Amino acid sequence: MAKLKKGTRCTVCKSKGEKTKAVVFLPHHRLALCREHFIQWFEKRVEKTVKEFRMFSRKDRILVAVSGGKDSLALWNALVKLGYEADGFYIDLGIDQYSQGSKELAYSFSEKIGRTLHIVSLKEQIAPIPVIDKATDRPACSACGTVKRYYMNRYAKQLGYSIIATGHNLDDEVAVLFGNTLRWEIDYLKRQYPVLKEEKGFIKKVKPLCKITEKESALYAFFNNIEYIEYECPFSEGASSIEYKEFLSKLEEKHPGTKLQFYLNFLKKMYPILKEHESKQAEEVKTCVICGEPSFSDICSFCRLKQKVEKVTDTN
Amino acid sequence: MAKLKKGTRCTVCKSKGEKTKAVVFLPHHRLALCREHFIQWFEKRVEKTVKEFRMFSRKDRILVAVSGGKDSLALWNALVKLGYEADGFYIDLGIDQYSQGSKELAYSFSEKIGRTLHIVSLKEQIAPIPVIDKATDRPACSACGTVKRYYMNRYAKQLGYSIIATGHNLDDEVAVLFGNTLRWEIDYLKRQYPVLKEEKGFIKKVKPLCKITEKESALYAFFNNIEYIEYECPFSEGASSIEYKEFLSKLEEKHPGTKLQFYLNFLKKMYPILKEHESKQAEEVKTCVICGEPSFSDICSFCRLKQKVEKVTDTN
Repeated sequence: MAKLKKGTRCTVCKSKGEKTKAVVFLPHHRLALCREHFIQWFEKRVEKTVKEFRMFSRKDRILVAVSGGKDSLALWNALVKLGYEADGFYIDLGIDQYSQGSKELAYSFSEKIGRTLHIVSLKEQIAPIPVIDKATDRPACSACGTVKRYYMNRYAKQLGYSIIATGHNLDDEVAVLFGNTLRWEIDYLKRQYPVLKEEKGFIKKVKPLCKITEKESALYAFFNNIEYIEYECPFSEGASSIEYKEFLSKLEEKHPGTKLQFYLNFLKKMYPILKEHESKQAEEVKTCVICGEPSFSDICSFCRLKQKVEKVTDTN
Repeated sequence: MAKLKKGTRCTVCKSKGEKTKAVVFLPHHRLALCREHFIQWFEKRVEKTVKEFRMFSRKDRILVAVSGGKDSLALWNALVKLGYEADGFYIDLGIDQYSQGSKELAYSFSEKIGRTLHIVSLKEQIAPIPVIDKATDRPACSACGTVKRYYMNRYAKQLGYSIIATGHNLDDEVAVLFGNTLRWEIDYLKRQYPVLKEEKGFIKKVKPLCKITEKESALYAFFNNIEYIEYECPFSEGASSIEYKEFLSKLEEKHPGTKLQFYLNFLKKMYPILKEHESKQAEEVKTCVICGEPSFSDICSFCRLKQKVEKVTDTN
């Protein structure tokens, strides 16, 4: 986010003849905004994204995946303020202080906004992430993703929600898109859309912050006095997505708007081609023979992971 | 290219029980090579690429687009050494010392290898690049590309060649691919293949150095005592492709092989999807109503450019 020049006025206030000082400058939107109008801008942008991609309506029961970080809490806050029926879902990953701290923040936020927070503990369900991590050769983030997606989907159905909303922001989406593009991972690229439709046991999943940058989301949390966990998950250290983010930020600095254009042009121009290609060779959704949840193979990726975890924990 | 550790032996010589010192290390191929075996490796790699993409055979008459730089001269040298019927085609762009110097080097190289160099002068045909550049709003490289492609295609046909070979190396291809991917320029991505087949007035075009890096090509020229023009075209300064190259080199440094994998995976996984998509909405090749050359619109891009140039030169 570019620096604000001293004395810059809020663009919106100025148009009304008022002279409020701007507190934030959004270079690729060419907007300088005061606190109030930044919050308004943010919520309008979320609302527009929800409508543009037909994510959900005010009749839907939405489950927000809450990590305790800025993005998920900002999303939850914005959705509730916009009048959506949004509750929270927190998965206690069992990562010592990180999980303890984030759970407390998620819980006190749910009390503040007066919405339900459902909590599931990995330790009780399968094993905490540090144990799961030891049981697999894959990067921790990859196993953690499998586990989170599994419980989120299963509990959303059990609890009667029709939508899962996650706090993935533009920087997240761009970093993943960039990594998948560098390796041309077609199967992943095909799924890189802000909406994954409901399909045979899979609940509809949406990313209403996909056009909001990391900094915009942090600022929204800050201006709304939302306390969130500020440090990264200790297992994410060295993750390639973090490296790509740094890399892309340098490009963005030189050419503001690069990230947003990269992402939006992908959605507009490349995604339809991949979708068309997919429809010819669509993978069939099966039912996992172990847990009965939807799966693309006979045993779902969660149950395969669980088998590995059980091997490790049995021998201990 | 990673630094060679002192005292490293040539991998190939070592396998024969000899102890020749290596002079070059190719990290993503895990090869340390002496001068002789580097030259052999380079030429084998070119030959393999020619065969893999069915570029041409020893029966074809090939016209090499020669700029006087390392890549085109290295390519020409390798093709002739490999026994291909390859002559050169030099376009004098009329860029002062740059063109003068590169023309002399291209000409003396053609004499050294005993092959014909055809020379066409833009000043005589349309106007030198500095004048063309003034006549259009597009970046100089873009207009220059249009003009070069036009004359290359037209003269290759007139002179009875069936193939145009250009010296685009892996770094060139990767930089262009990266730029087109950042903007998801589908129409350009569709044409990003080392072979553009012959089509209604367009001669077959090939890029036999597409798997050779810039440094490998410079080294090949150096080891073969090929004198080439070392400075960049003055009009290319600030070109986005140069910026992307710097950017990608940093990624490559951290993860050797990234560039090659980005390019090869594109060809293997993404290109077929784009090709399939294209076949459904293929553009029809027409004939330019002004010059009679093949074109995708009624007036070809060269003639449109020429009209602009004439406007400028007429008023002067």
